[in-house]
Amino acid sequence: MRRFLDLADLSAERREAVLARAAQLERAPVRDALSGRVVGLVFMNPSVRTLASMQAGVAQLGGSTFVVTPGQGSWKLEHRDGVVMDGDAAEHVREAIPVLGSYADLLGVRSFAEGRSLDDDLADVTMRKMADLSPVPFVNLESAIAHPCQALADWKTLDDLEVPRRGGRLVLSWAYHPKPLPLAVAASTLTMAAMRGMTVTVLRPDGFELPAPVMERAKRFAAEAGGVVRETGDRAAAMDGAHVLYAKSWASPAHYGRPEDAALRARHRDWCVDEPWFRPAVRDARFLHCLPVRRNVKVTDAVLDGPRSAVIAQAGNRLHAQKALLIEMLTEGHP
Amino acid sequence: MRRFLDLADLSAERREAVLARAAQLERAPVRDALSGRVVGLVFMNPSVRTLASMQAGVAQLGGSTFVVTPGQGSWKLEHRDGVVMDGDAAEHVREAIPVLGSYADLLGVRSFAEGRSLDDDLADVTMRKMADLSPVPFVNLESAIAHPCQALADWKTLDDLEVPRRGGRLVLSWAYHPKPLPLAVAASTLTMAAMRGMTVTVLRPDGFELPAPVMERAKRFAAEAGGVVRETGDRAAAMDGAHVLYAKSWASPAHYGRPEDAALRARHRDWCVDEPWFRPAVRDARFLHCLPVRRNVKVTDAVLDGPRSAVIAQAGNRLHAQKALLIEMLTEGHP
Amino acid sequence: MRRFLDLADLSAERREAVLARAAQLERAPVRDALSGRVVGLVFMNPSVRTLASMQAGVAQLGGSTFVVTPGQGSWKLEHRDGVVMDGDAAEHVREAIPVLGSYADLLGVRSFAEGRSLDDDLADVTMRKMADLSPVPFVNLESAIAHPCQALADWKTLDDLEVPRRGGRLVLSWAYHPKPLPLAVAASTLTMAAMRGMTVTVLRPDGFELPAPVMERAKRFAAEAGGVVRETGDRAAAMDGAHVLYAKSWASPAHYGRPEDAALRARHRDWCVDEPWFRPAVRDARFLHCLPVRRNVKVTDAVLDGPRSAVIAQAGNRLHAQKALLIEMLTEGHP
Repeated sequence: MRRFLDLADLSAERREAVLARAAQLERAPVRDALSGRVVGLVFMNPSVRTLASMQAGVAQLGGSTFVVTPGQGSWKLEHRDGVVMDGDAAEHVREAIPVLGSYADLLGVRSFAEGRSLDDDLADVTMRKMADLSPVPFVNLESAIAHPCQALADWKTLDDLEVPRRGGRLVLSWAYHPKPLPLAVAASTLTMAAMRGMTVTVLRPDGFELPAPVMERAKRFAAEAGGVVRETGDRAAAMDGAHVLYAKSWASPAHYGRPEDAALRARHRDWCVDEPWFRPAVRDARFLHCLPVRRNVKVTDAVLDGPRSAVIAQAGNRLHAQKALLIEMLTEGHP
Repeated sequence: MRRFLDLADLSAERREAVLARAAQLERAPVRDALSGRVVGLVFMNPSVRTLASMQAGVAQLGGSTFVVTPGQGSWKLEHRDGVVMDGDAAEHVREAIPVLGSYADLLGVRSFAEGRSLDDDLADVTMRKMADLSPVPFVNLESAIAHPCQALADWKTLDDLEVPRRGGRLVLSWAYHPKPLPLAVAASTLTMAAMRGMTVTVLRPDGFELPAPVMERAKRFAAEAGGVVRETGDRAAAMDGAHVLYAKSWASPAHYGRPEDAALRARHRDWCVDEPWFRPAVRDARFLHCLPVRRNVKVTDAVLDGPRSAVIAQAGNRLHAQKALLIEMLTEGHP
Repeated sequence: MRRFLDLADLSAERREAVLARAAQLERAPVRDALSGRVVGLVFMNPSVRTLASMQAGVAQLGGSTFVVTPGQGSWKLEHRDGVVMDGDAAEHVREAIPVLGSYADLLGVRSFAEGRSLDDDLADVTMRKMADLSPVPFVNLESAIAHPCQALADWKTLDDLEVPRRGGRLVLSWAYHPKPLPLAVAASTLTMAAMRGMTVTVLRPDGFELPAPVMERAKRFAAEAGGVVRETGDRAAAMDGAHVLYAKSWASPAHYGRPEDAALRARHRDWCVDEPWFRPAVRDARFLHCLPVRRNVKVTDAVLDGPRSAVIAQAGNRLHAQKALLIEMLTEGHP
């Protein structure tokens, strides 16, 4: 398996094998599956969990990592083709990726949403170009439109919480955030829940409807897996019988990269998840969020510190899921 | 042993065991005491020695590290409870510490002095909150009021230099620095020397008296160990018969977090340690400083480059002391 | 071998042994030559390839690294002697280097050109001072005037490409870049090619002649090795029969550190290497560059993406050459 750019890059069979291995690794460490291997990590955007869990996970498996942070400890990278590079970027990914790949057994790259052309970001142009340039297996550590390591960990978290696959009800809710955030986690969560066969409701204010291609793709996965994908602005209807509320903020696709987003989002400061949101849900409904989360902006202390929240375990699963993925990619699943 | 926030967290018996092991590790490396272990390092403030010595030490013992630098390669962390997080900080330590702890066998964290409320900084509110949130053993890599790894290394340095415990005379002298620096090293050095049973003199200009709780605590330790703690502005009296001059700058506790500090400190630019300071001391009196040090601001080239200075060996002991501490904390002293 | 500040620090015999080992390491990994060893890396300037290839290479050999980045994750370092340190720099290399050296088995340091005094930069004052202060073997990871790890990798690349040593024709060409870049790679490439016995032509616009001491030193090496070193502004003459075009930009030595450089370089925006440059060369002449390179500023997409370009393999050789060097320095060539 050469690349993991989206959860769909894992066949159903491989996905189940990786999830099973992740659960095993959580119970019993494996010490030397990646012995002598080097994983190169490139962070074009800041990171806490992804950086730490990748470094820790590779180390626990006996391997090593190096970290390159363009624009921070090193210069910015250009990714557009054919440009005259007389601006900020001192190096092109056409050089950087093949070179870094030649030092590593696998590359993991966090890119970013351009936040200008919705079509380009939906097509994941930058990340796919880098994957094409890589001489070694390549993992998306969050791109313009996907965060598949998060999705894999979230799937495990839902399994751990015994949220049903078919018939499980997951609400993916927009939440207020002062800035227009990328669509990556929203799209990946939707894909994941749809593939899992769940009944998924996207809850959002008007103007924050997810892009049609994202919804249509999710509906195709849902159809295959026996699930349902729908969208609404009606909170009570969305939360009715919900097992899980997964909160995330995202930019307005209708005003993508434009200043109109700010005025629109400012009207929805009340989209801060609080206990009353859960009244129509099942009694022990859970709260998930990929983190980082701004407390009392996106969700209240009461929810985060209460028994519904599974965000710490969810983040903990990043480690187990990624270790299982690396074993799959670097040893064909035979550590 | 779950936490090392202050030198006093080590019982006398464990402290001696750690010091003995540090001396052993300096003579003969131990290769695999931390094999398969991961130490997570969080630096909210810059670091040279602590970062390098922790990474080197863990590696020499066969373990691995990851490093997170909030505000640098990642976003800032909030630590106040109950706030609406609509400012710079994108994540709260209530999430960050449990999550990072779930990836590691031990967390080491460098925090900072808020520099606003002296009471809060004396109570080490931020560091203690993070330690409480950690699911794994936790080491203070410098906080508002303590730098216990430095203190442990300094104790070893004094032993190596054969400075007597009881009856050894250590002068902790304020020195000029353009900025109001935290109290951590001053407080930890005082605690360490008092616990060691030494005769400790705090030498400082008027207005830079150490806070009463810091002095009182040190006096209690001194009483237990047969030592003496006193304070003066009289350099010749302080240095009389001194074995060691330990220089450090600190903010004015009387004007903590207030602009009056600047005018007060500007009057004491002549508090730059120089050879004449040592005239009343014993002939081979030594100079210590935790580093980094501004040459010819806090201490002259003549002292730093002369035979009195033990600052390089002192910094070298960070490695040995921390390795011994990690073995104590992660293997109950049985590598 | 205690220090590698310049390619000439390797005797001819050792250089050939290191090159042979680099070729071996490329074919067959060696797993534990540096087991238990720690390499400290200090980057005073940004890095992508050097950082990644050093971390990857040490890890592949079983060792570990730590990275200190003054001015980035830590404070700036002062290197001038006798100054009153009341500015930006909070620590002097007189402390930092011995201390970091005490944590490591070898130090690798990237410094920078001061870009003020050409004489100081030619004498490599900063790097040589740091090497003198190091208690452990010391490697120059690029200084004001030398990039010997690059030169070693370039030598291997020329061998791999079967470019003849004696009689091989290498053109080191100035290329346009918006900023006055250091002389390090130009000087090291010239030294390397001269030592290799090649016929080396420095091609540059008027005002960008390399400094006389650099040219004279290269001529001495060429004389010993049976090569020739010359300089011209005539592109067609320089490229006549060339096997290799090595492009690099550098500051005007005639206007070193002065604003006149900008006006002078602005006149030479057409020094962007393109296919027509190669017309007088041998048919399969190759293009080399140390990277990073600004596409369509220093060299066109057509050249970089075409069959002449060997820049990816060249950068890949950094890994193999450095691994061989570290084995030579840390194990006397007996892994």
